[in-house]
Amino acid sequence: MREKLTLIKVGGKIVEEEASLRQLLDDFATLTGHKVLVHGGGRSATRLAERLGIESRMVDGRRITDAETLQVVTMVYGGLVNKNIVAGLQARGVNALGLTGADMNVIRSAKRPVGNIDYGFVGDVKQVNAALLSDLIGKGVVPVMAPLTHDGTGHLLNTNADTIAGETAKALAEFFDVTLVYCFEKKGVLRDEHDDNSVISSLNYADFRHLAEEGVIQGGMLPKLQNAFEALNAGVCEVVITQATSIKGQGGTRIRL
Amino acid sequence: MREKLTLIKVGGKIVEEEASLRQLLDDFATLTGHKVLVHGGGRSATRLAERLGIESRMVDGRRITDAETLQVVTMVYGGLVNKNIVAGLQARGVNALGLTGADMNVIRSAKRPVGNIDYGFVGDVKQVNAALLSDLIGKGVVPVMAPLTHDGTGHLLNTNADTIAGETAKALAEFFDVTLVYCFEKKGVLRDEHDDNSVISSLNYADFRHLAEEGVIQGGMLPKLQNAFEALNAGVCEVVITQATSIKGQGGTRIRL
Repeated sequence: MREKLTLIKVGGKIVEEEASLRQLLDDFATLTGHKVLVHGGGRSATRLAERLGIESRMVDGRRITDAETLQVVTMVYGGLVNKNIVAGLQARGVNALGLTGADMNVIRSAKRPVGNIDYGFVGDVKQVNAALLSDLIGKGVVPVMAPLTHDGTGHLLNTNADTIAGETAKALAEFFDVTLVYCFEKKGVLRDEHDDNSVISSLNYADFRHLAEEGVIQGGMLPKLQNAFEALNAGVCEVVITQATSIKGQGGTRIRL
Repeated sequence: MREKLTLIKVGGKIVEEEASLRQLLDDFATLTGHKVLVHGGGRSATRLAERLGIESRMVDGRRITDAETLQVVTMVYGGLVNKNIVAGLQARGVNALGLTGADMNVIRSAKRPVGNIDYGFVGDVKQVNAALLSDLIGKGVVPVMAPLTHDGTGHLLNTNADTIAGETAKALAEFFDVTLVYCFEKKGVLRDEHDDNSVISSLNYADFRHLAEEGVIQGGMLPKLQNAFEALNAGVCEVVITQATSIKGQGGTRIRL
């Protein structure tokens, strides 16, 4: 029988505030089975950029990453945020290993082509090399992944943490029964966007199509769920959309094919 | 027969200038056998601290590390310098893995007790856990180690890169035939400090004692060599003191018991 693995993606807000980070690390440490943590760090990057007099430019929530900004995110995502999480997990008995996509060539990406917008040093994931990673996981190591990848020719690239989580989950599905957990600010996928307690507890593809046609699911949730079903089609067992405070529980929306 | 491993320590100056970094990575990539790179990054840390309006205070070449400075070195050593080296080595076909001592609990340290000087968040190495590390090295992974450790209770600590190199070499000597290479600005240990070409090509402990008594070896070289002999006594096969530009060759001072 294949072993279970839980891959949890948390946004910057959770890991950048001391109290919520402590809670997350406490909860994450008690999760049983193999696990992986993927984190953001955008707010800290914006803050450091500000202190250095570097303007942060965002388009549709994506950071335009010029050469100076790439240095900022390399320092913040790969250094400050990642290593503090690793040290915090080690203190809780979790044998964490901080990684960017460059480390062990785990995630190879390509610089996003310049279209209407030039995102700069932003990478689209091309390949996840999960063999060494799964080997380490099997030995009890817990990867903590920063949203940075590399292009194989010496350049680091800023890469969306949701994408890193999804692509890594798919690659690890070759070795483990993977549950992919996306933490976000709401309790799950809502039936009524004005009612935080109207969480849809489980969702399959037929339900999703139906609710999307009815307009119940709309806006930013549509691509999120399309990505979830793509991960399921690629071998991930289950995708959960929930709050960071609920990663231990049964809350949120559980998505299966 | 045990396999050979070369552990190379380079200071900040080499890895912080683009041309010398490129040369180092080219040379390091062509080294045969297992290998490990330990790097500094002090000049970049000082530069970032300056831009952030944080004063850099040094005592005997050691950085006083207050809470803000710890953030700076975590960003610079663990993020900027480390991940750029990793990406650069990956581009040269070297399967590099960037590490701090917190990652996989590789190096546990204790905050230096406050004596005449309060160094702040500086760690003295207590334990190197080389089992997982040697396992990865055996699989072709090349660790790239930043001068940061952790205390096991969630705190990262700034740690001297020479010490990290020496302690890691000793721990890896349980698994490999280790050559420890310290790169510094001179070509090796000099017979005449005013003649850069007066390199002592090989040195054993009897020679060392003799030359130290004669006053030929003195000053900062004395503790460096004492550390070298300590590493040899702990199982390291050979210590080489040389220039970063000579890591491929037979130059420098080769030290054996």
